[in-house]
Amino acid sequence: MRLAAPAVEVLDQTMLPQREVWLRIETVAAMCEAIAALRVRGAPLLGICGAAGMALAGEERGTTDGALRAAAEEISATRPTAVELSWGARVAMHAALAEADEPGARRARLWQFAGDHMERRKREDLALARHGAALLPEGAAVLTHCNTGALATGGIGTALGVIRVAHAEGRLAHCYATETRPLLQGARLTAWELARAGIPASLLPDTAAAALIASGRIQAVITGADRIAMNGDSANKIGTYGLAVVAARHGVPFYIAAPWTTIDAGCDSGREIPIEFRPDEEVGGFGGQRWSPEGLGAYNPAFDVTPGELVSAIITEAGVARAPYGSSLAELVAQP
Amino acid sequence: MRLAAPAVEVLDQTMLPQREVWLRIETVAAMCEAIAALRVRGAPLLGICGAAGMALAGEERGTTDGALRAAAEEISATRPTAVELSWGARVAMHAALAEADEPGARRARLWQFAGDHMERRKREDLALARHGAALLPEGAAVLTHCNTGALATGGIGTALGVIRVAHAEGRLAHCYATETRPLLQGARLTAWELARAGIPASLLPDTAAAALIASGRIQAVITGADRIAMNGDSANKIGTYGLAVVAARHGVPFYIAAPWTTIDAGCDSGREIPIEFRPDEEVGGFGGQRWSPEGLGAYNPAFDVTPGELVSAIITEAGVARAPYGSSLAELVAQP
Repeated sequence: MRLAAPAVEVLDQTMLPQREVWLRIETVAAMCEAIAALRVRGAPLLGICGAAGMALAGEERGTTDGALRAAAEEISATRPTAVELSWGARVAMHAALAEADEPGARRARLWQFAGDHMERRKREDLALARHGAALLPEGAAVLTHCNTGALATGGIGTALGVIRVAHAEGRLAHCYATETRPLLQGARLTAWELARAGIPASLLPDTAAAALIASGRIQAVITGADRIAMNGDSANKIGTYGLAVVAARHGVPFYIAAPWTTIDAGCDSGREIPIEFRPDEEVGGFGGQRWSPEGLGAYNPAFDVTPGELVSAIITEAGVARAPYGSSLAELVAQP
Repeated sequence: MRLAAPAVEVLDQTMLPQREVWLRIETVAAMCEAIAALRVRGAPLLGICGAAGMALAGEERGTTDGALRAAAEEISATRPTAVELSWGARVAMHAALAEADEPGARRARLWQFAGDHMERRKREDLALARHGAALLPEGAAVLTHCNTGALATGGIGTALGVIRVAHAEGRLAHCYATETRPLLQGARLTAWELARAGIPASLLPDTAAAALIASGRIQAVITGADRIAMNGDSANKIGTYGLAVVAARHGVPFYIAAPWTTIDAGCDSGREIPIEFRPDEEVGGFGGQRWSPEGLGAYNPAFDVTPGELVSAIITEAGVARAPYGSSLAELVAQP
């Protein structure tokens, strides 16, 4: 993502890996469309989008308290599961509201906040990745799900950032990446990032993950998260929960890597996390190609919730939390 | 499949659901190609293909002991995991070898054996389906994987046959079917059969199965099998093992429905079942469409093995076996 006041430029991830198309976004509605259509996705990147969307709101709709509050609501509602989107929009709003009610000052503050958040993200991804890489044994093969790389965060990534740093440190033997149906973020985006980074890697159908874990070929599973409750329950891309259940059965550590801001202090357990359901059309086909006949409905939740008891550790830029999460996450959240 | 001596006609399942293309097959090589390319698939149907392939061998290559033994070997090797393919080819061979060494008699015996096996399959599917439907509670919603319907068996199907009979008996509330990456047998074939049968159904990405099971929406998981060891370990379509692990965690019964001939008396445990790995190109794309960039390898086993301890019952036409499988499967196999 690039901030280019009074507009924002984003890489349209729905076009990858075939084409690199940058979109120029000038309105809140266009930003919300890009978020809803998953042109931009990935929880940490959505945090930046939330902040950048507020900067666009300031340009387009003015900077009154009412206008800014309405825009923050509108942006947050676009994808209800990802806490960072809402975090980015709301914290940006509060930063602007703390300024004198003068349009120029508030607009400047919104752009500054979005830029600072992008820079912070980059530093924090690197800190997170170093914490995570230290958990992997020498010569580890690792399984990851969905895309949690540079495309997802604006930095080097969360779970994929851990994998990149482990590879750079010579500690990584192999990365296995799931295709991640229905939107194939693994096959399209993670595969693209792994190939560009020259990391030894294999792609697998989501169906093959349990056999891979059972085979003894991998030493860890590592994924991102979209929202983490205070008891360690973690919402992430659909399919994560099944990986965690199978990993636990085989004694393979299951790690969550996510920015500190993914921890939702207002959320006691996974039962409180709203789960977004996506359109039926995403199932039974992809990219204009349909495989299934007409007339069937679909079951298509975008996320599932992995209970904290299945999570070996939660890796953040502020440190690594382990069970019992009630106390370890509270400590992380309370850090300055 | 249609037997039309001296040829066999098969529905090319790789073209479904878009087109119904029947192929006329006249040689062993053409039958092996159709099997390897999954134009015909499904363990019980492969049993019929094995027998029909031997009838083609008799026409094409003569009926000497050597010619028939070589053809049975060649056909069996085409897909090593499915025991029924080998069963059909070898039992047909033995039936022919028991005839006098006279080409006309042996050829007639091979065609007769293939035809009898098809008819037996239809009767046995129905018996199996009735045993299975009786296990489902009134108003059950059921999850199934891959395709185990008429397309897979030549009869009404195994696991999908159970679902069809439960629906016909008014006991079925809903059928959930996985897409079944990489070859999408669920999205293409099961969806097609469910839509034609008018069964209320939803398609789901393989990634959503664990969340579906955890949600409490389903009362049973039911799949087929390609080979069952005498301790109950069952090889089936890749992805089955993960479903069984998650079902066990949530106390949802996990059923295997398969013909009696799928039980391999020569196989003590799942560790002895050879697992076929399929080409890398099946991952990261489908049907000429590629999603992933070049240069990544794939992890693409066609099957995984579910340990007997996770299987609530094995449903066959000869009855229902439950743990301990050592004795219950031995009893089934020993039936007249």
